[in-house]
Amino acid sequence: MFTDLPEPQLREYRSAVTDPEDFDAFWDATLAATRAFDLGLVVEPVDAGLSTIDVFDVTFNGYGGQPVKAWLRVPASATGPLPAIVQFVGYGGGRGHALEDLLWASAGYAHFQMDTRGQGSGWTLGATADPEGSGPQSPGFLTRGIDSRETYYYRRVFTDAVRAIEAARSLDSIDASRVSVLGGSQGGGIALAAAALVPDVAALVAFVPFLCDLPRAAVVTDNEPYKELGRYLAVHRDSTARVFDVLRYFDGVNFARRVTAPAWFSAALMDPTCPPSTVFGAFHNLTGEKHIEVWPFNAHEGGGTFDQALALEFIGEVVARTR
Amino acid sequence: MFTDLPEPQLREYRSAVTDPEDFDAFWDATLAATRAFDLGLVVEPVDAGLSTIDVFDVTFNGYGGQPVKAWLRVPASATGPLPAIVQFVGYGGGRGHALEDLLWASAGYAHFQMDTRGQGSGWTLGATADPEGSGPQSPGFLTRGIDSRETYYYRRVFTDAVRAIEAARSLDSIDASRVSVLGGSQGGGIALAAAALVPDVAALVAFVPFLCDLPRAAVVTDNEPYKELGRYLAVHRDSTARVFDVLRYFDGVNFARRVTAPAWFSAALMDPTCPPSTVFGAFHNLTGEKHIEVWPFNAHEGGGTFDQALALEFIGEVVARTR
Amino acid sequence: MFTDLPEPQLREYRSAVTDPEDFDAFWDATLAATRAFDLGLVVEPVDAGLSTIDVFDVTFNGYGGQPVKAWLRVPASATGPLPAIVQFVGYGGGRGHALEDLLWASAGYAHFQMDTRGQGSGWTLGATADPEGSGPQSPGFLTRGIDSRETYYYRRVFTDAVRAIEAARSLDSIDASRVSVLGGSQGGGIALAAAALVPDVAALVAFVPFLCDLPRAAVVTDNEPYKELGRYLAVHRDSTARVFDVLRYFDGVNFARRVTAPAWFSAALMDPTCPPSTVFGAFHNLTGEKHIEVWPFNAHEGGGTFDQALALEFIGEVVARTR
Amino acid sequence: MFTDLPEPQLREYRSAVTDPEDFDAFWDATLAATRAFDLGLVVEPVDAGLSTIDVFDVTFNGYGGQPVKAWLRVPASATGPLPAIVQFVGYGGGRGHALEDLLWASAGYAHFQMDTRGQGSGWTLGATADPEGSGPQSPGFLTRGIDSRETYYYRRVFTDAVRAIEAARSLDSIDASRVSVLGGSQGGGIALAAAALVPDVAALVAFVPFLCDLPRAAVVTDNEPYKELGRYLAVHRDSTARVFDVLRYFDGVNFARRVTAPAWFSAALMDPTCPPSTVFGAFHNLTGEKHIEVWPFNAHEGGGTFDQALALEFIGEVVARTR
Amino acid sequence: MFTDLPEPQLREYRSAVTDPEDFDAFWDATLAATRAFDLGLVVEPVDAGLSTIDVFDVTFNGYGGQPVKAWLRVPASATGPLPAIVQFVGYGGGRGHALEDLLWASAGYAHFQMDTRGQGSGWTLGATADPEGSGPQSPGFLTRGIDSRETYYYRRVFTDAVRAIEAARSLDSIDASRVSVLGGSQGGGIALAAAALVPDVAALVAFVPFLCDLPRAAVVTDNEPYKELGRYLAVHRDSTARVFDVLRYFDGVNFARRVTAPAWFSAALMDPTCPPSTVFGAFHNLTGEKHIEVWPFNAHEGGGTFDQALALEFIGEVVARTR
Amino acid sequence: MFTDLPEPQLREYRSAVTDPEDFDAFWDATLAATRAFDLGLVVEPVDAGLSTIDVFDVTFNGYGGQPVKAWLRVPASATGPLPAIVQFVGYGGGRGHALEDLLWASAGYAHFQMDTRGQGSGWTLGATADPEGSGPQSPGFLTRGIDSRETYYYRRVFTDAVRAIEAARSLDSIDASRVSVLGGSQGGGIALAAAALVPDVAALVAFVPFLCDLPRAAVVTDNEPYKELGRYLAVHRDSTARVFDVLRYFDGVNFARRVTAPAWFSAALMDPTCPPSTVFGAFHNLTGEKHIEVWPFNAHEGGGTFDQALALEFIGEVVARTR
Repeated sequence: MFTDLPEPQLREYRSAVTDPEDFDAFWDATLAATRAFDLGLVVEPVDAGLSTIDVFDVTFNGYGGQPVKAWLRVPASATGPLPAIVQFVGYGGGRGHALEDLLWASAGYAHFQMDTRGQGSGWTLGATADPEGSGPQSPGFLTRGIDSRETYYYRRVFTDAVRAIEAARSLDSIDASRVSVLGGSQGGGIALAAAALVPDVAALVAFVPFLCDLPRAAVVTDNEPYKELGRYLAVHRDSTARVFDVLRYFDGVNFARRVTAPAWFSAALMDPTCPPSTVFGAFHNLTGEKHIEVWPFNAHEGGGTFDQALALEFIGEVVARTR
Repeated sequence: MFTDLPEPQLREYRSAVTDPEDFDAFWDATLAATRAFDLGLVVEPVDAGLSTIDVFDVTFNGYGGQPVKAWLRVPASATGPLPAIVQFVGYGGGRGHALEDLLWASAGYAHFQMDTRGQGSGWTLGATADPEGSGPQSPGFLTRGIDSRETYYYRRVFTDAVRAIEAARSLDSIDASRVSVLGGSQGGGIALAAAALVPDVAALVAFVPFLCDLPRAAVVTDNEPYKELGRYLAVHRDSTARVFDVLRYFDGVNFARRVTAPAWFSAALMDPTCPPSTVFGAFHNLTGEKHIEVWPFNAHEGGGTFDQALALEFIGEVVARTR
Repeated sequence: MFTDLPEPQLREYRSAVTDPEDFDAFWDATLAATRAFDLGLVVEPVDAGLSTIDVFDVTFNGYGGQPVKAWLRVPASATGPLPAIVQFVGYGGGRGHALEDLLWASAGYAHFQMDTRGQGSGWTLGATADPEGSGPQSPGFLTRGIDSRETYYYRRVFTDAVRAIEAARSLDSIDASRVSVLGGSQGGGIALAAAALVPDVAALVAFVPFLCDLPRAAVVTDNEPYKELGRYLAVHRDSTARVFDVLRYFDGVNFARRVTAPAWFSAALMDPTCPPSTVFGAFHNLTGEKHIEVWPFNAHEGGGTFDQALALEFIGEVVARTR
Repeated sequence: MFTDLPEPQLREYRSAVTDPEDFDAFWDATLAATRAFDLGLVVEPVDAGLSTIDVFDVTFNGYGGQPVKAWLRVPASATGPLPAIVQFVGYGGGRGHALEDLLWASAGYAHFQMDTRGQGSGWTLGATADPEGSGPQSPGFLTRGIDSRETYYYRRVFTDAVRAIEAARSLDSIDASRVSVLGGSQGGGIALAAAALVPDVAALVAFVPFLCDLPRAAVVTDNEPYKELGRYLAVHRDSTARVFDVLRYFDGVNFARRVTAPAWFSAALMDPTCPPSTVFGAFHNLTGEKHIEVWPFNAHEGGGTFDQALALEFIGEVVARTR
Repeated sequence: MFTDLPEPQLREYRSAVTDPEDFDAFWDATLAATRAFDLGLVVEPVDAGLSTIDVFDVTFNGYGGQPVKAWLRVPASATGPLPAIVQFVGYGGGRGHALEDLLWASAGYAHFQMDTRGQGSGWTLGATADPEGSGPQSPGFLTRGIDSRETYYYRRVFTDAVRAIEAARSLDSIDASRVSVLGGSQGGGIALAAAALVPDVAALVAFVPFLCDLPRAAVVTDNEPYKELGRYLAVHRDSTARVFDVLRYFDGVNFARRVTAPAWFSAALMDPTCPPSTVFGAFHNLTGEKHIEVWPFNAHEGGGTFDQALALEFIGEVVARTR
Repeated sequence: MFTDLPEPQLREYRSAVTDPEDFDAFWDATLAATRAFDLGLVVEPVDAGLSTIDVFDVTFNGYGGQPVKAWLRVPASATGPLPAIVQFVGYGGGRGHALEDLLWASAGYAHFQMDTRGQGSGWTLGATADPEGSGPQSPGFLTRGIDSRETYYYRRVFTDAVRAIEAARSLDSIDASRVSVLGGSQGGGIALAAAALVPDVAALVAFVPFLCDLPRAAVVTDNEPYKELGRYLAVHRDSTARVFDVLRYFDGVNFARRVTAPAWFSAALMDPTCPPSTVFGAFHNLTGEKHIEVWPFNAHEGGGTFDQALALEFIGEVVARTR
């Protein structure tokens, strides 16, 4: 059944999340502090047993100069710089196994798949530590460091994402002017933040994105991982105002205001994990070229491979323009 | 938690399923009847948007000469006949989207992925009808046509699988002497049957296979889809003996006795869907070269990509011998 | 808790399902094709061990001349033609055991209980095959053959129902002018269709009917069996328009427009299986004499025996008029 | 899946419940005290709208002279005293609606269906009060008055059952020498107790009986209503010994030792409500003619109508002997 | 997620429960009848092993002169009459263990904790019988005796509560002019009734109170124990009007109209057990000094210790005024 | 139902966890490193609004000199050094609210309740950060830092616990020779570790302790939080040996070998969270004076207040000896 508003109301819905005055200053300072560290990019070939794709084990320095892992997959036959897709991963997963996610490289892109720090023990393997601790938190990542915007977990993750784009762009095999960002669920939320913080990416693709319209997300679903937030606030009863003030600096609704690249979103009307109103809450704030694909009968899987096929078309077309 | 016996007991466990005297006669007659129909193989290129893999939409005539769909994926750069992997799909799914399951072709194999008749509406798309009806049945496929061995649903599916192998072998791009069969869950059960019915396949790979040791499966788990059987027998209270007699002709335990190709199995100790004892029930009846990988902390996902990586190694090694 | 709209809004709600221009032509052709086959009625006495009721095992030819089973139960003391009740069964069940459902014959009616083809393995026994196959479908019956109106499962079931009425009417023990149709849940949906296709039945009784207002049913509940539809559409993402176009020919909302017999419905405000708005969606389209009983605190059991007692009163009164 | 021991172990299993020395004295005194009250039998015809069965609303004085309701259903054509079936009802239900449970009268028996005091609000209607209060108890009936054997709820219910048999036997329409007792689940447990307390009943039928082997029942299932016991003991941590001492006077295991009538039991191997070992615990203590029907694939529904059909055969045969 | 209306709508919502003309007459007569029995107060010291608090085992005669247990906890160092808090307990629990609930005495109050008759087997121990029986009822206490206002279970409980206040006030150690009533969930509902029936209590504290706005509670949640009501009405289909007429005499909405003491309530927006609209339904009817604390992210635990801390402040301030 | 072995088998069961040779060396080095930091104890009075108990907000430096919070509660009337109870908290909780857990101080003990770093957002408030990060981990705390024994989360927590005892002992109000450790679930596991690492504590009390017999715990229950371990190992498929080697340094089974203080344990036979065999696994390794209380009908609540009352008796008796 529909888990949220029907589509006509979604088209009208607008998020109530406001934009902090010092949002850009906060992020400028954050990125500047991390850019003071060397990128430290290391790219090592991996014998994954594939014949059509070359796989590389990538390490670069993310937030605070802390090492972050990634996979780089490139068509084996590639010559010359390729358009690239930097992918971010869904909640709980990591960059996974070298043999996973072969689609994007098979389609002719350099595929740079960033690990998510501290995650990667839920459904796909991760290999990146989150060396920062946390105040009291709910099990999970959504309330890690939520005491302040400086210590919040996603400050580190979004900074990693910016550095991942910079790492990808620095590679000879990649055409820096044709680097797109893409992800589903948490990966979509990270891609959205990254596209705001690196406005000249070629394209943004966010499948059923997480991390959008957080005050609404916290009260319209009981599903994990948004429920982590409600669980925290049920105990930290006097911290609601503080927590939502911190979250304004990390809400896709505010990142969306800053995206200028062409954007392709999807939302699913039976999604209890990332309720479609929260996705529309971010989508409506995009000011550039944009599209949202609505899947009426799907839950959080959204369009699945159909989403991917449409994203390939979209990126192909955007990248063709910039060639 | 463990859903079945602990590993040392699994190593000792033996299935009580007996081998019908006319098992081979039944299957010989079944296959002969279908082979009376032309294979009717049609292979049409598909523009899937990939650069490293060529995808073909395949149709061939399966059981009773009825059309069955498949995908053929071949490395774009391939020249000369390739070793092939014929893959069968898990319960409820179909051959899926052209963009899915790129691993095997990326690893250099011709990948022939057979659709499962009537299924393909549960998690991946199917495109093949099952034109045969059924007596009273539980929702699902496990009790379709269970009134007799002649009408049982899997008689048609296993025959389709044999014809899929024959179709693959008939292709110029495929080296008929190096065709392996592979699948997970229901796909593993079909692969096991196919390797028994086509004993000269190069190798058999069955991840956490379904359709094994059925009388035990029916009483040691409440999970779908084995529960379909229990649900049927709860209503058809006087049909138990008849049903289990029919199922002897379709049980992996009996197919395993007939497999001669090298075989690679996996089982998961926390799997409530295909309890590991049922997998061992079949595995112990294999008489040739065999290996079983046991995943102690996994449920029905088994080894996941780890299973696939190990299977690639195994097939690679087997195929290398036959070169 | 209420699972749908509160009663005042149910009274106002109108379904958005539209009436296909060729609805009647489709059904005229369908029935004509089946009527080309002989009815082939066979009625055999059964020794059920009862002293007040005689039970007969009935076979007649339904859709496509395919055999359909039924029970006929008649008061043992009956002389002369009786008013009759043709009953259809809920989803998953069959005509059941000879000893079940003794109410209607005990109340003095000839009780003709039709089996539902292919079902009868979920909670009561069935004995009728559905010899037609299907394209890819969800486990169950709601998406069987949904590729086209010609192949859709309920085309066959509704045609069987028409033939069941004709079979009942052809019996000497039954007064053809006083044959009512009745059923609960799926049985109510079949009764509604039958009363539209055989407009001169004496009365229509539908307890919490299924198969009404299908596009709404697919999005306002997650309960089986309506969920089969959503599950199918979640995979067959590009088939939504086609599927709902097919379903217009089978929707109780459209059959209701064509019913002229007095009708008695029930709906339950806590019913998650057949949400009351879908029942009202059909009910409001009835143009003749009609009544709907609303059970505020019941789930899908509706009024249970209270519904049956009220239906007995209603049918008794209607039949008395026609005597 | 099997919810308890496999059948061979059930055949060997013996209950550890011991027989209190003063068991018979306790029950003799209990029945004597109630028999001091007049039976107060009132039988009033009801217009249930049936033509083959006459229904009567019965009131008699049960435990402590407190009024208990019942239905009496008799074939409309009956002349002369009939063999009778006194039926007791499952947990939570009551005697139900006059139109329910027509099987036994339709088969030619006088059917005397006793209400269960205080119950009848869970799935069928009850009309009998339990005017006695209780010490602290879990919601439900299994721990009502469990402080002592004198105040325990089932002391009253079993006494009602004895009086129901006496009431039935006192009716002209019933042949007192051919009165059997029957019930399913709680009804089976009551029938078992009644057959022990009124040893000259013609036959005992207990479908998947409740109230047997209570110390084991309390630890081998989490299903209601046995769970009421565990919930009580989880709070009344120092009452375990006392509670199980009280329950010895009400355990089917001890009543079974005293039954002399021919007995027919059923048990279901997938029954989580009345686990089959608890049924066998009582069954093995029967010392006379006995049969147990085992349903391997059924849960608490047991054999359903199949059980009833077999019970009709069994009672028919037993009653034929005594004619 | 929010389980009921959002806060702005809760502020506007008004209950539809009406006030019976003879509400006060009914309760006056009820209390008068009980007051005809002696209070029979017995207070016995208990060696609970505490050094800062003295614990007493209390018995007094409640409804119908029936004995009711309580704990009295007093600061060990106390001299002279203390302000008191009479506490009532949540559904299923009893007065508990002597060592539980030490907060109120530790804060300097005489703490009189009343047992709830018949309960005390669900999560804390009870020691008080409910010697009155019941007509047919759902398992639990909410429909016990619901046949009439005279026999309804809460008539007895609320009368016990009045007598508990009178018992507390009669103690030398307690200052009768400074006795407050307090409770959570069912305890809050009892406190509310008690504050209406004993209007000169010093203060009323009700955390997430139960037993308010019952017709709405019965249809807006499926959680226990309100569901007991719906389950009863689902079977007693023709008793809805009678049941809701009886409940008007016990609904917090009507008691609230009669409270004159300062009142402190809490409600939780994610509470599925006592949905916040039902709490507001009562709260809005309070006519005196009142406050409601709203916990947006909490379920039925409400403010927990935060509620208690705020209640201590509130009672402290109210009691200070009256000193 | 029983969730694990029956009691006689629990009495025989012995854990297979082995004792690492360098276990003591590891812990000696760990504690030495932390003791290099100043204890930094700060004790500040809190106005909690209580009259019988004085509450203090405590901060001390735990593992790595990182600040840890605690509450100190002392009877208001206390003079001279008191026996003390150092309490550790269950999983997910923190030291809670100043008004909680008044029992131990009310019984005359100085009650020192340590916060658990990073937790305190699940059911009671925490106020202590865990400033150390982690490699990839499951949501929660059980796999945080599980890459090595040096980085494992409980290395820090157990060190905090040792420092908490040292902090308590350093207070004038506490008699250092009469300090006991106590906790339930995770708190019991921490108390067990602390009693091994500080062998001269007066007594050890562990209610249904967590963190015992971890390899067995990981496969005999699916409940949180032990499931965190299984979830991690299901993804990190090649880390099983490494993980269980790390866990040997933190397993209660090994700490138990080193405890010399009198010990009081409880276990519950229906506990799915800390299955009783894992508790017995540790208990059987205790070599000194010991008792285990077994609750047959309880789940993870164990004996609840009954456990506390027995623990008070036990500690009282032990402390009396040492006076």
